[in-house]
Amino acid sequence: MKVLILGVDGYIGWSLALRLMKMGHTVSGADNFFTRRRVREVGSESALPIGTMAGRIRELESSGFGDLEFFRGDVSNADFMYRIIREAQPDAVVHLAEQRSAPYSMIGLKQATDTMVKNIVSTLNLVYAVKDAAPDTHILKLGTMGEYGTPNIDIPEGFFDIEYNGRKDHLPFPKNAGSWYHWTKVHDSNNLMFANRVWNLSVTDVMQGVVYGTRIDEIAETGLYTRYDIDEVWGTVLNRFCAQAVSGLPITPYGEGGQTRGFLPLEDSVTCLAIALENPPGDGEYRVFNQFDKAYSVNYLAERVKEIYEREFGKSAEIRHIDNPRVERESHYYHPVNENLKKLGYRSKRTLDEEILHMLQDLQQFVPRIRKLSGTIMPRTFWKAP
Amino acid sequence: MKVLILGVDGYIGWSLALRLMKMGHTVSGADNFFTRRRVREVGSESALPIGTMAGRIRELESSGFGDLEFFRGDVSNADFMYRIIREAQPDAVVHLAEQRSAPYSMIGLKQATDTMVKNIVSTLNLVYAVKDAAPDTHILKLGTMGEYGTPNIDIPEGFFDIEYNGRKDHLPFPKNAGSWYHWTKVHDSNNLMFANRVWNLSVTDVMQGVVYGTRIDEIAETGLYTRYDIDEVWGTVLNRFCAQAVSGLPITPYGEGGQTRGFLPLEDSVTCLAIALENPPGDGEYRVFNQFDKAYSVNYLAERVKEIYEREFGKSAEIRHIDNPRVERESHYYHPVNENLKKLGYRSKRTLDEEILHMLQDLQQFVPRIRKLSGTIMPRTFWKAP
Repeated sequence: MKVLILGVDGYIGWSLALRLMKMGHTVSGADNFFTRRRVREVGSESALPIGTMAGRIRELESSGFGDLEFFRGDVSNADFMYRIIREAQPDAVVHLAEQRSAPYSMIGLKQATDTMVKNIVSTLNLVYAVKDAAPDTHILKLGTMGEYGTPNIDIPEGFFDIEYNGRKDHLPFPKNAGSWYHWTKVHDSNNLMFANRVWNLSVTDVMQGVVYGTRIDEIAETGLYTRYDIDEVWGTVLNRFCAQAVSGLPITPYGEGGQTRGFLPLEDSVTCLAIALENPPGDGEYRVFNQFDKAYSVNYLAERVKEIYEREFGKSAEIRHIDNPRVERESHYYHPVNENLKKLGYRSKRTLDEEILHMLQDLQQFVPRIRKLSGTIMPRTFWKAP
Repeated sequence: MKVLILGVDGYIGWSLALRLMKMGHTVSGADNFFTRRRVREVGSESALPIGTMAGRIRELESSGFGDLEFFRGDVSNADFMYRIIREAQPDAVVHLAEQRSAPYSMIGLKQATDTMVKNIVSTLNLVYAVKDAAPDTHILKLGTMGEYGTPNIDIPEGFFDIEYNGRKDHLPFPKNAGSWYHWTKVHDSNNLMFANRVWNLSVTDVMQGVVYGTRIDEIAETGLYTRYDIDEVWGTVLNRFCAQAVSGLPITPYGEGGQTRGFLPLEDSVTCLAIALENPPGDGEYRVFNQFDKAYSVNYLAERVKEIYEREFGKSAEIRHIDNPRVERESHYYHPVNENLKKLGYRSKRTLDEEILHMLQDLQQFVPRIRKLSGTIMPRTFWKAP
């Protein structure tokens, strides 16, 4: 299969390239290095060392993964999007090239607008380029479980049967996101659903949980790390907790810590995406996958990191709750369904505890590097003025 | 009350300015004349003659309406938005300054992107400018009944109580729009709901039906026409049917003509907006009004125009169904609720038949002008390649 990965330089994009090339697929990728630049702007960098794209491509070759065709450019530029779709003529495009930080989108109007415009326009460009230049291409688009918010009812996969005032329909589940970033993903989902309806494009819309982990099998074998962010803007919760533990800092849940979300290891993320690619939707089908392993509260994750770190490394770790920079419920019902990927064969390969141990072991090798970045970990971005 | 109308040069914006000034409110307005330019680009113009903004403002004064403060500029420019909010310090802002044509948004990627970006950014600019510079200002935002699509269940006003798998919640009603334009309004509604949640802004989100009519009372008294578009891109269905009738052209429903939508006279539109302004939401309240009078099928409207024209003008009119340029259901359930405005006192002032008669009488005075524009009426914009 020929797969084009938009955002191939990113945390998931790079891991997915390794996995798909290892599986024997022909992989091309695009990136404009937006995340690298923006992470530098907050004074941080990837906590695990990564090379330049040219260096990464050479390492891929010398590690026996083969040749990755790379397009440098911005997918929110329509000409660039049309060019790479035309040149790559992929069987599938995986769209991971959006601004992916909720805090970044909440810094101010400039960042809100930047996130809103670039994310939405990139997906618009994609559906038009596919319609015009490669209409049979499977669009695999990364959304987020955060699109759903935290309703007091079960969360289905995209659509649900509803009875209201005695009549029935099968409708999109109401979304209720918690940052401008998360809303762009809702807007994208709506736009994809419409593009599918009008032009019969084949779309998988992935509502992904929070991804954690330092490695997939291919990284463990080769040391070809993917990026791993720990700062308050670009890092995510469990990855940050592990970095805090190994560098001797308190583990800092936001607020009460009762916030519950769907999580999955990086290993599972690329496994699920490969499953979706190898089991494409039917012609003109729009399908939604809730892609996560299990739901955990932030408090539970903090406790697991603390306990595993103390047990395995023989040092103590502290949990310290801090004011929540976000506007979100800190205690709520949460019951999302994740059956579609399981029906296609997805089973989680590792337990949370195993994966946390791997993370702590991998990060332990870079403690001085992580300590240097530790000033970027505490929140400086607030949903409303504190 | 001090009211700032964004899009004051438009069909509803101008009418609302007349109404509010007549009621004694202090009105300022902004416009960048986008609609005038785009209507010229499709070879058309307003079927009813309107002056330049400078001329309109002079006519307002000489007709005893008083002084309208006008800001020329683009509300998708953040600096401009902040400047006018700061200078006007309004009690309420009415946001009518978005690209409002579904066909325009479906011409191609350039127009889709233009619509998506400008509409969303203008509303983002508005919420940030109000939050930062005038946080007590009531935001009255025009959305569309088209945000809901045509579900097989009743359509509530924005939110509904839902029971699913034995649990209950009060959630936003799922939206399902029919063009990029309509989706921008969904995205706006979602963004407004979020801005309200995070910053406690006071918002009225108006889901307006299709507006028809040549006049409100103030126009009938003064002849200060508002714009009236009849071309395939910028005109709307009933206004176009009346123009077709008076100029001796067939009345052309799209497809089977069973499409049913909420409609309201222009007179009712400004009445409803004035009611919403004089009965603002509570501090930090986000409320949704479904703003329409009655739901009609396209076929019913075509038949009413034909019958009234033939009866009153003694000439015959033909109804001719044409291929539907849109992708939409041509026969469907449609039962939207519109109670919120009625609870505040809204009652429709005129029947559909009375309003159609007024329209035909007003347009009858400009038949040569309308005949000149008649080449722009038939569809040239298609949702999918025909």
